Amino acid sequence: MDFAEIGRFFEEHDCYSILTHKSPDGDTLGAGFALCAYLRSMGKKANVLNGEGFPSRYSFMYEGYEPQDFEEKCVVAVDIADTRLLGSGLAQYAEPGKIDLCIDHHISNKYYAKQSYVDGEASAACLILYELFKELGRPISDLIAKCLYTGIATDTGCFKYENTTPKAHIAASELIQYDIGFSIINREMFDIKSKGRIAAEKLVMDSMEFLCGDKCAVIVMTTEMMDRCGIEPAEFEGMASIPLSVEGIKIGITIKQRHENVYKLSVRTTEELDASRFCRQFGGGGHIRAAGCEIQGTLEEVKDKVAEAVMGLGL
Amino acid sequence: MDFAEIGRFFEEHDCYSILTHKSPDGDTLGAGFALCAYLRSMGKKANVLNGEGFPSRYSFMYEGYEPQDFEEKCVVAVDIADTRLLGSGLAQYAEPGKIDLCIDHHISNKYYAKQSYVDGEASAACLILYELFKELGRPISDLIAKCLYTGIATDTGCFKYENTTPKAHIAASELIQYDIGFSIINREMFDIKSKGRIAAEKLVMDSMEFLCGDKCAVIVMTTEMMDRCGIEPAEFEGMASIPLSVEGIKIGITIKQRHENVYKLSVRTTEELDASRFCRQFGGGGHIRAAGCEIQGTLEEVKDKVAEAVMGLGL
Repeated sequence: MDFAEIGRFFEEHDCYSILTHKSPDGDTLGAGFALCAYLRSMGKKANVLNGEGFPSRYSFMYEGYEPQDFEEKCVVAVDIADTRLLGSGLAQYAEPGKIDLCIDHHISNKYYAKQSYVDGEASAACLILYELFKELGRPISDLIAKCLYTGIATDTGCFKYENTTPKAHIAASELIQYDIGFSIINREMFDIKSKGRIAAEKLVMDSMEFLCGDKCAVIVMTTEMMDRCGIEPAEFEGMASIPLSVEGIKIGITIKQRHENVYKLSVRTTEELDASRFCRQFGGGGHIRAAGCEIQGTLEEVKDKVAEAVMGLGL
Repeated sequence: MDFAEIGRFFEEHDCYSILTHKSPDGDTLGAGFALCAYLRSMGKKANVLNGEGFPSRYSFMYEGYEPQDFEEKCVVAVDIADTRLLGSGLAQYAEPGKIDLCIDHHISNKYYAKQSYVDGEASAACLILYELFKELGRPISDLIAKCLYTGIATDTGCFKYENTTPKAHIAASELIQYDIGFSIINREMFDIKSKGRIAAEKLVMDSMEFLCGDKCAVIVMTTEMMDRCGIEPAEFEGMASIPLSVEGIKIGITIKQRHENVYKLSVRTTEELDASRFCRQFGGGGHIRAAGCEIQGTLEEVKDKVAEAVMGLGL
């Protein structure tokens, strides 16, 4: 599919459900709400769905948003590489044939939709949408610009990571000319921490363990730790980058408890290692520098599996 | 002065000393080493000077750099708003008439040089140089691109702060196409922390005090604290942003000990307050969201003066 074909797809369909992935981040929600506002501006009916609801952290994206009442006729997934990322809340869409269109930037995309536009080189799903909207020519609102900027900024670590492309900077140079208050968004996305988050970071720092001659750092966040700090899971976003912030670390691993005996691994790597490959051995995937997977077992069992896999890297 | 005039100035002069400011940061050093390499590529003799030496944190800018032996005939200051920022190591240049050209982006520039190019709207001195070099047309090397990118990235908090302009993003979109390893630079500038720095952050977080109903946060770094963590002053860069990272804080103040009874204040503000104005009452200055000044006295006296000034803001 090319942009013109997606444009025709948008014209020809109506009554859209836009799916976003579980543990929603700035890119999936930015893409979801930007696409929803765009389709509505075309006179279409559209809603954004997430299996877990929308975190308050991103409330600036859905201020004034009201779900519309209609019979769903078209399903679009944004920033979702695999139907497993829909989560249990949207599990009804995981069956084959349920999703009409997927717009994504994960190279690991499983091509589960009837039609897909996947650009593994794009810094963010929101960058794809920005370039799509620009090519289609319809003017975008400040809200759309705000959502798209947020997705690009959050997925690139505010233009810091290797996945930042010249196109991402050019999109940003244009998007910050809308009335979006980008520095306030960035402050909220990257800088501001609640006192609970600060307390949580201290706990997490204290949990840090080193492997392979201090080349690997592992941190742990249990539900008990989250409860103790009184913060919601969305507030933990970005914590996965903490282990890699220690000098000399090549691979940083965050073990976050999801449920009793279910842990989510977030893996971050420097130039020399492939995080996606590391996670694939546990049935996960993602990007080369940032990937994830789920491991079952007690915390000790999970830590042992992680340590074994890290040893296998031959650092 | 316009860019063409600066171009003629470069042609007509030789044997340059390029001055950078005390407590050197990525922008002053990036501008210094970029300009030095550029002038040398024109066949000119040029050296970069700093009163305190070049921090190892920026060694990638001066790898392969060798001071040249010549009799100085032209002095250029980069990213220096006021001759007081030369520091004691370059005090000989503070007398009137010593500096031929100043290229700066501080709106508070004192116009101390014989000729000045000051653009208070520019995100960084390095952004001015990038646009200058582009207009002058001579190709730039990867090293020059690396220095310029670093200055723009560090002065904008990696494109996060309000001072990030569309031009800064456009420059970045072009500069990251050189072989500069921008993500490695960003990791080193923004993410990586030595274990000493991590220990120092913990101490600093513990020193945090709140004023005006938690709208102002103040942190302290004494030389004793720095010694205890075994880190050099340059490693403290960026710590001044810590107080403003706490939810609800409008003004964040970092009190850093320079010597016995001499403290440097770094002030950071959100949208509603003018940091430069706050610092001017202590004889300092800077930008609207980031400014600094020096206060003499014991730590308690300095804290009292700060508290009084904060009360005066009527938060």
